[in-house]
Amino acid sequence: MRSSQVTIKDIARILGISPSTVSRALKNHPDISEETKVAVNELALKLKYQPNAVALSLKHSRSNTIGVIIPEIVHYFFSSVISGIEDVAYEAGFTVIICQSNEKYDREVANAKMLLSHRVDGVLVSISKETTNFDHLVMLQEGGLPLVFFDRIVPEIIADQVIINDEEAAYKATKHLIENGRRRIAHFAGPQNLLIGRDRKEGYLRAIREAGLQADPQLIIDADTYEKALIATNHLLTMDNPPDGIFATNDLTAIGAMQSLQKKGIKIPQQIAVVGFSDGRFSGITEPNLTSVDQHGYEMGSVATEILLNRLLSPSETYVPQTRVLSANLIVRGSSK
Amino acid sequence: MRSSQVTIKDIARILGISPSTVSRALKNHPDISEETKVAVNELALKLKYQPNAVALSLKHSRSNTIGVIIPEIVHYFFSSVISGIEDVAYEAGFTVIICQSNEKYDREVANAKMLLSHRVDGVLVSISKETTNFDHLVMLQEGGLPLVFFDRIVPEIIADQVIINDEEAAYKATKHLIENGRRRIAHFAGPQNLLIGRDRKEGYLRAIREAGLQADPQLIIDADTYEKALIATNHLLTMDNPPDGIFATNDLTAIGAMQSLQKKGIKIPQQIAVVGFSDGRFSGITEPNLTSVDQHGYEMGSVATEILLNRLLSPSETYVPQTRVLSANLIVRGSSK
Repeated sequence: MRSSQVTIKDIARILGISPSTVSRALKNHPDISEETKVAVNELALKLKYQPNAVALSLKHSRSNTIGVIIPEIVHYFFSSVISGIEDVAYEAGFTVIICQSNEKYDREVANAKMLLSHRVDGVLVSISKETTNFDHLVMLQEGGLPLVFFDRIVPEIIADQVIINDEEAAYKATKHLIENGRRRIAHFAGPQNLLIGRDRKEGYLRAIREAGLQADPQLIIDADTYEKALIATNHLLTMDNPPDGIFATNDLTAIGAMQSLQKKGIKIPQQIAVVGFSDGRFSGITEPNLTSVDQHGYEMGSVATEILLNRLLSPSETYVPQTRVLSANLIVRGSSK
Repeated sequence: MRSSQVTIKDIARILGISPSTVSRALKNHPDISEETKVAVNELALKLKYQPNAVALSLKHSRSNTIGVIIPEIVHYFFSSVISGIEDVAYEAGFTVIICQSNEKYDREVANAKMLLSHRVDGVLVSISKETTNFDHLVMLQEGGLPLVFFDRIVPEIIADQVIINDEEAAYKATKHLIENGRRRIAHFAGPQNLLIGRDRKEGYLRAIREAGLQADPQLIIDADTYEKALIATNHLLTMDNPPDGIFATNDLTAIGAMQSLQKKGIKIPQQIAVVGFSDGRFSGITEPNLTSVDQHGYEMGSVATEILLNRLLSPSETYVPQTRVLSANLIVRGSSK
């Protein structure tokens, strides 16, 4: 359809810069130098490059299908997001194609190409843990497909995005433990190369500092899997001054902690309180039930889809990307109170 | 593409019979009367109807995409099936489009239409709990798309299918309890309108009978959700002669049973042994770990995809549908031994 047209990739190749730099230069992104912006815009004009909004309006016929690229559907959070997406989409007469990257960059690229060739009308994306190059997503925008990112966003691409406030949620979770009398709170931290891992740790530290407590580096342990949590908990129990609370970066690690504690005869929450993160399917089947953060997956999916459908059904001349930050709340259950 | 061609629906309308009857008549299915077969074949000849194999071979260009219609991706079993599908498909250079019916007939129909209009090369299907009319699936076959059913199959449609032996798996689970000295085994049964619910109950009954034990109707309770399992367990404990083992139709109900038992101070497995079904994510996070049936979701997905790819890559003149029955095995853990 647009095979004979000039693309962002052509401009990038000629100037010897990356497609995402071209994309941002065309959108007047503050991170791009004036020099680059001028070069890109001059060449775009010369080659008669058509920006997305125009490409979009040229796309007369809709397939009434939207694509979703999701890391792992086995996660309860992501499957809740999909439910939210589908309910809004089907209500509006759209069908949903789901693609799983399975946390692999190569599959995410294959998914993007497939969605483009199948002419979906727009795409909802949450990137894989491996993804550091975003040309395949720029390619979708270039093909006239509006993108909406959710949860795992790409700051380098100008697009709508829906996220939750991880830092605030972690702060709330830790503050809850402090308000219930805990003074030595351990944190099972997620990978620090992921924004969500850093944000959750920062929220934890903010609550500790605000309460005038001392952050103890020995109480912060990298543990984002069930197995790591078993080891980490046993390690904490060998300390001269063990913790009286644990804030875990996800529910599976919180459950690992609970089981290790219960095996040693430690009472939850009386001796050590435990809080998880994500309100998955597990929180209701532990004994006691697990206090956890509700990530509002369903709401995230439905809000992202509303934004996308709005782009499709009421296209506007000026594209002002929006960021929606959903507030995550803590569901207090027996493990912490 | 084939809009001007005669379809199975046309033949059905003219003869006043259902499209699936026409489909079966054309395939010489033993359930269809000779009279109907003759009528259908004569009309098909007269109208120059082209059967699927021909339609398939006429389909010169492939999209290298296969579609999957699945009831609920939130189930660990189905997400394992998807992993198996994707690994085989991507290895062969195919991309996978996943559609969730969310157990709704309407969405399943919308999914089928969408997959047809997006020209996928073939479709893997497990039907929703609501689906009793199969015209949308016949439509896919008619459109030249090979179908492979998995887990929840449609006996009325002639197609490849991959299933597990639910009756045998339930038999093994119950026999295991008997071999470990249990004599009064309760069964939390699934919905009896579903084949898998009936098969699991039958396997349970066969093991009981074979061991020369008496099947007690009071020990068979409809309980396929976590909440129902809590109530059912408490009910069993009020009996004068409570059970010494429970075989539950799924893992969530087994976990409900375990929690109710533990709350009343009953030791698992010493006093009452518990076995679940499906080997989901939960079996490893209970204390003790849950004995359960491994449904081989990954294998089911990969086998179904191999069959489909074989249809696509080595189409044959004669179509002999195949049924693959995977043997489910019991994973024995602490809850029963």
